Amino acid sequence: MQKPSNARGTRDFGPKEMAKRNFIFSIIKTHFQNFGFQAIETPAIENLSVLTGKYGEEGDQLLFKILNSGNFMDGITDADIKEGPKSLTFKISEKGLRYDLTVPFARFVSMNRNDLAFPFRRYQIQPVWRADRPQKGRYREFFQCDADIIGSNSLINECELIALFQSVFKSLNVKSNLYINSRKILSGIADKIGKIDQFTDFAVALDKLDKIGWEKVAEELISKGFNLSQTKSLEDLITFKGSNQECIDVLEGFFGDNIIGISGINEIKEVFQLVETNGFDNSNIIFDFKLARGLSYYTGLIYEGKSADVPFGSIVGGGRYDNLTSAFGLPNMSGVGISFGIERIIDVMEILNLFPEINSSGSKVLFTYFDSEGQLQSLKYLALLRSKNIPSEIYPDYSKIKKAFEFADKKQIPYVVVLGESELSDNKINIKNMKNGEQQLLSISELIQFLAND
Amino acid sequence: MQKPSNARGTRDFGPKEMAKRNFIFSIIKTHFQNFGFQAIETPAIENLSVLTGKYGEEGDQLLFKILNSGNFMDGITDADIKEGPKSLTFKISEKGLRYDLTVPFARFVSMNRNDLAFPFRRYQIQPVWRADRPQKGRYREFFQCDADIIGSNSLINECELIALFQSVFKSLNVKSNLYINSRKILSGIADKIGKIDQFTDFAVALDKLDKIGWEKVAEELISKGFNLSQTKSLEDLITFKGSNQECIDVLEGFFGDNIIGISGINEIKEVFQLVETNGFDNSNIIFDFKLARGLSYYTGLIYEGKSADVPFGSIVGGGRYDNLTSAFGLPNMSGVGISFGIERIIDVMEILNLFPEINSSGSKVLFTYFDSEGQLQSLKYLALLRSKNIPSEIYPDYSKIKKAFEFADKKQIPYVVVLGESELSDNKINIKNMKNGEQQLLSISELIQFLAND
Repeated sequence: MQKPSNARGTRDFGPKEMAKRNFIFSIIKTHFQNFGFQAIETPAIENLSVLTGKYGEEGDQLLFKILNSGNFMDGITDADIKEGPKSLTFKISEKGLRYDLTVPFARFVSMNRNDLAFPFRRYQIQPVWRADRPQKGRYREFFQCDADIIGSNSLINECELIALFQSVFKSLNVKSNLYINSRKILSGIADKIGKIDQFTDFAVALDKLDKIGWEKVAEELISKGFNLSQTKSLEDLITFKGSNQECIDVLEGFFGDNIIGISGINEIKEVFQLVETNGFDNSNIIFDFKLARGLSYYTGLIYEGKSADVPFGSIVGGGRYDNLTSAFGLPNMSGVGISFGIERIIDVMEILNLFPEINSSGSKVLFTYFDSEGQLQSLKYLALLRSKNIPSEIYPDYSKIKKAFEFADKKQIPYVVVLGESELSDNKINIKNMKNGEQQLLSISELIQFLAND
Repeated sequence: MQKPSNARGTRDFGPKEMAKRNFIFSIIKTHFQNFGFQAIETPAIENLSVLTGKYGEEGDQLLFKILNSGNFMDGITDADIKEGPKSLTFKISEKGLRYDLTVPFARFVSMNRNDLAFPFRRYQIQPVWRADRPQKGRYREFFQCDADIIGSNSLINECELIALFQSVFKSLNVKSNLYINSRKILSGIADKIGKIDQFTDFAVALDKLDKIGWEKVAEELISKGFNLSQTKSLEDLITFKGSNQECIDVLEGFFGDNIIGISGINEIKEVFQLVETNGFDNSNIIFDFKLARGLSYYTGLIYEGKSADVPFGSIVGGGRYDNLTSAFGLPNMSGVGISFGIERIIDVMEILNLFPEINSSGSKVLFTYFDSEGQLQSLKYLALLRSKNIPSEIYPDYSKIKKAFEFADKKQIPYVVVLGESELSDNKINIKNMKNGEQQLLSISELIQFLAND
């Protein structure tokens, strides 16, 4: 018999972790709802035709694929096998696990276009799966919390998502910065140096700037066919540091009359103007024209949120995508979304000790007794307490009061009831406070009142 | 471009379905919590070594298996391929999708045995996956809502789960019957006719009684090697109909001094005695000694719940398992569980029209306007409304009031605000009730009060 374990990169959540997770989920959900987002859920399993080609080449490789049921080797020839795993995969597997929530959402919108009112605001809180190499803080199964507005080009929607960002982290008490950019600015830069045809290479390399620094990024670009004069003109720009307005000024100078670049700058300016009115202190919104983001479907504004105190990675990501539903037969349906990285947010809140004390013991009171009469009476009392929404349970064994108290202690149940002979004959309940040891003798109605108010 | 679709046997849930599902989940969750159950979650992906061999041969076949990442054909020989898909599967796939919540729970308990207080009451509400042939009401991805008590043999736990059954369906307003039996009674019957060695064949055949009738069950038993005198002595028993007490009497006569059979009968009697005190009308609890249940891990009491009005299948299932954690290195850890079949419960409630009217529109109010001044003012008001937990949104486009009203209508948003020139100059808000067309001119504080109380 094997020692059991979790599959690599996956985790169990016990009662204490669940209490913390539900605390955050419930706050985020409340804000989603206050902003008019409606809940949807999509299945974990999608046809691979829905998933592949949406996340770039790396994403395709990181999809978990499900083996076809039954005789999956039926019709597979030696030639198929010789072709190697990449092409064989799609012959023995036609389904995969959800990789993010945005692509299934685009499929959903395309399939339900006639029933939905646009712009459609939806939120979705579900796990996703990526066959990444597991490492600290990175899991193969993790939750995404997404809100998207689809069916409108207006930058007011970007502004709405920024307001959502601000209100969620205000509630969670997490100081955070939001870094924003536009893919159009990146396109303008690539265009201006004559490399718009290699925009993806440019964006992929730039996405690593924070991690590997400018020199390595430049090396990668050169290995992809950029020449030295191109990387040199990038260098001056990329290494520039300044306020939001200074960055805008520098870029306007750089772009001159470059149409795509200027349209990106104008987006940024308009968003800054709109968020000025949204009622929050917006000094934490930073224009970062080096921000690239990995996912290939973004076309407009993009953003990443980080904790101001523990900035070890992004806790929020998102942006605008103009063409995602086209892949599912629905053109002209621009959307913009924000994704809260719940796993990292939990890590940040743990480090900063921001979780309130949450009772995860389950029951408020445990019933114990010495004989079958006490047991039957406990069952009656339990039914009453539960009908008043007072979480309560019964210790299953007779006359093991010591074990019952150890149990209550370990589970951190705050109160224990002992129903002995005298309590039963007097119709009273002896209740002990497990924290301070105080005992009281109460009637059932007094007990209910006491626990309901505690 | 392919027309997008859901993977076979899976479904999306739009806002209306989500509202119904959350209504039921939230009621069940409240009862779970009132009974002292603590939430846990386990990953969707498990090592196949955890899953296989727990659900019987059919279950093993219905597991969704995940293709190994990277070059999964590395080291696979022609001989491996010739051996056929069954053995090849385990060479190219080492992970699978959760098939139920009980086996992962047993793994969790085994791995966390030192941190948990026993008896441990846990609830778990998560999807599971089965590669079943999809049909009406049967899906490949569906939610299970489970509550289990593990680490105690006491029948008080069975009684607790029965009380939970009663209280959940009382809240949901669904009339239901609970059919109970003990695997020990079935063992006693098999033992008595000299077929204890073929207990599984007996239980598997009997499980089909409701669907195919006694004659076909008898045929199946004979095909498995039962002789005619054995099926004849079964027939008298199996076709017997009577009250709970009459069934007990008949079985006691049949068993004589058969130890295992009598111990099963005594369990049933004790449970009936215990539930008498649990405060519910228990006339809906029916002793059905023909009840077998499919899953092979049950060892003691088993039960199935059905709607009294739409009895097209079970809406609840569960039972006691003595040895499930042994497979994970933890012997002597008996547990008992109940699983609410949320998908069927929804179907029953739909048919009986038991859902209350649930607002799934998302927002309570939509802001519309004619110009950028109105837009900026809308953003300010929105921030105020949301800070008071009033779900609200903004229509993104200028001067398309007609489209905005059509949108509100389709999304069933109950109120629309129009911010025109005069409203802006008077610092007032024109709000229209979309149901009756009534309009009011309010200040922002009056608006907040009006919507908060509505």
